[in-house]
Amino acid sequence: MNLYMPAAFDLPSGLSYFNGNSLGPLTKRAKARVGEVTAQEWGAHLIRAWNTCDWMSMPARLGDRLAHLIGAGESTVMVGDTLTLKVYQALDAALAIAPNGRTVLSDTGNFPTDLYAAKQVADALILVEPEAIMDRLSKDIGVLLLTHVDYRTARVHDMKQITRAAQDRGIICIWDLAHSAGTLSLDIDQSRAEFAIGCTYKYLNGGPGAPAFIYARPDLIADINPRLVGWMGHATPFDFDLSYACGQGRERWRIGTPPVLQMAALDGALDLWDQMDLDQLETEARALGDHFIAGMDALCPGLSLVSPRLSQARGGHVSYAFDQGYALMQALIQDHQIIGDFRAPDRLRFGFSPLYNSKKQIDHLVETIASLLKTKAYEKPEYALKSRVT
Amino acid sequence: MNLYMPAAFDLPSGLSYFNGNSLGPLTKRAKARVGEVTAQEWGAHLIRAWNTCDWMSMPARLGDRLAHLIGAGESTVMVGDTLTLKVYQALDAALAIAPNGRTVLSDTGNFPTDLYAAKQVADALILVEPEAIMDRLSKDIGVLLLTHVDYRTARVHDMKQITRAAQDRGIICIWDLAHSAGTLSLDIDQSRAEFAIGCTYKYLNGGPGAPAFIYARPDLIADINPRLVGWMGHATPFDFDLSYACGQGRERWRIGTPPVLQMAALDGALDLWDQMDLDQLETEARALGDHFIAGMDALCPGLSLVSPRLSQARGGHVSYAFDQGYALMQALIQDHQIIGDFRAPDRLRFGFSPLYNSKKQIDHLVETIASLLKTKAYEKPEYALKSRVT
Repeated sequence: MNLYMPAAFDLPSGLSYFNGNSLGPLTKRAKARVGEVTAQEWGAHLIRAWNTCDWMSMPARLGDRLAHLIGAGESTVMVGDTLTLKVYQALDAALAIAPNGRTVLSDTGNFPTDLYAAKQVADALILVEPEAIMDRLSKDIGVLLLTHVDYRTARVHDMKQITRAAQDRGIICIWDLAHSAGTLSLDIDQSRAEFAIGCTYKYLNGGPGAPAFIYARPDLIADINPRLVGWMGHATPFDFDLSYACGQGRERWRIGTPPVLQMAALDGALDLWDQMDLDQLETEARALGDHFIAGMDALCPGLSLVSPRLSQARGGHVSYAFDQGYALMQALIQDHQIIGDFRAPDRLRFGFSPLYNSKKQIDHLVETIASLLKTKAYEKPEYALKSRVT
Repeated sequence: MNLYMPAAFDLPSGLSYFNGNSLGPLTKRAKARVGEVTAQEWGAHLIRAWNTCDWMSMPARLGDRLAHLIGAGESTVMVGDTLTLKVYQALDAALAIAPNGRTVLSDTGNFPTDLYAAKQVADALILVEPEAIMDRLSKDIGVLLLTHVDYRTARVHDMKQITRAAQDRGIICIWDLAHSAGTLSLDIDQSRAEFAIGCTYKYLNGGPGAPAFIYARPDLIADINPRLVGWMGHATPFDFDLSYACGQGRERWRIGTPPVLQMAALDGALDLWDQMDLDQLETEARALGDHFIAGMDALCPGLSLVSPRLSQARGGHVSYAFDQGYALMQALIQDHQIIGDFRAPDRLRFGFSPLYNSKKQIDHLVETIASLLKTKAYEKPEYALKSRVT
């Protein structure tokens, strides 16, 4: 299967996009689905669309379309809300069954929102360096909350090994797959992890603010009593009962009325993913990263690689440190139509997707960086670091 | 100002839509904005759109556009998530400052999701009939959580009177404006209520799954420490601090990444609302309801009015009870292109908006119901009540 399919995307011509790890680009199918759902379903079916277009089951249907991308079975994944909310739901459910109590362990490489949620709901939050996680797994830890791929460095945790070691000590595991889904070959079922969560607006191209997903191991779901409950998760929402009775299986993860237009975009985007060979995807994504690193080694030795050099230890993006990083990235974006991103204080981050990035494009990226380093053309006053950057 | 502007909507020709109290119809502006934000902003600006198209501030900007519709001042309303989540946020904040403790009072006319949330976070939830609220306000109640307009009957609570009586007893007030915003003249500032919440997919035409809004009285916001926190509510989200520090003012209501495409639809829909005269809107909306009731009195005396007859005691919709209500509504929808809704066990519900409903259209509605009652043409096997209806 040829994964390279730039024609499926609506990318501006002449633009090189290396930021699909942050916001995936628009696919033609997503654009079409958003148009259809807006004009035909909302516009013409109106309120009837909840039944006639089955908006009611969209969160579950999208969950089923996503399941194979994380190695989960049918009826185990539910889409909705935001990743932050799904962190709360997973934490609540994990803490409720944790035999070791309500202390959460995480690492300093986790995305901040996960840590904010953990701090709010755990009795205590213990943070260690990513490399120290294995040594810190002990019976005083109730729940382990980790992001699989570090959003800055792309360092990958060994999900199977860590999960096994944690579970040997009675620790419940939650894996945040935000930076893994759509670039690595995941097998959440085989890992035996209790919970997983993730977002769909990065490699999966679900669109800005696309809904998140949550997974629970099938043997656990029936006993979960969510703390954040709402009418859409009720067993019979249209009975309008004054008391809550939680829905069957994954239905209990639902809270409020789902975002139909965002789900339309995700639905269209997933058309590219139904037949995806995850092993091939991971191999090709990492090959693009290796190609970039090799090029940078040769042409730009002045920048320091902060991602793992070994491709098996790395997710889908590659980061470099450079003290003029902000200005350099501005020059790439504004003067060369090459889009990556910058993360304070000095990190340049480039994400690679085999679906729309080619080795040739990466060669051009490396050559442009090399040329900028040589000419220092990035040294413009308007490219000076501002206080807030996304 | 002429409020009747059917040309601003994308309603199918020949269709009479009386369900804007449940899902508002598509406006041409919303359709255009969704198209623009999808194709130009996401498609062409990509990740840069968070800055170049200022997606970052959309929740606040939409809050400002909504504020005058509930009688709130600038910088007091924030858009995001779902109404259920905003109920949790308002309850958490209210319970934290309630001098009388953590018991919540509500009524049996409240929408179920509000009650589910209250049950989860309060020490106790006391439910009385809507008419009994005033008598039940006493110092054992910490927080009063009411929906202003009853989703079934359209009965309106006297917000000013109840708020004053509650506050005299030290009770913190939360008003859910889901069925009021966009049909009644609201003045939340003048009511002195502490918190208000609501949704935007009904009379405001924000689209299926449109984000909700939350308001806190300006003197309170600086001391609120939200319990559901996320990276977008951080004072400096792009510093990626490992510890949470809540943002200024209403920014603290933000949790996760906002749903940009849903916000685009709402942004377009609000183009109709910027200059809205709320007194005129309320007068005209209620006049449509009065016109419907007068017609039903004359032609359909067999149906029982369950909404208040007095227009001042009623919101924007009118409900009737009829034991063959489900079949009658199916006949209206399927055979006559007239859309209202049915709520178990026997309620027919019709919402009226001066923006796209006319008296002539209502005459046609009444005549069609009268004709169906006479011919019993709704007695078809395929119109028999099914177990799940929206």
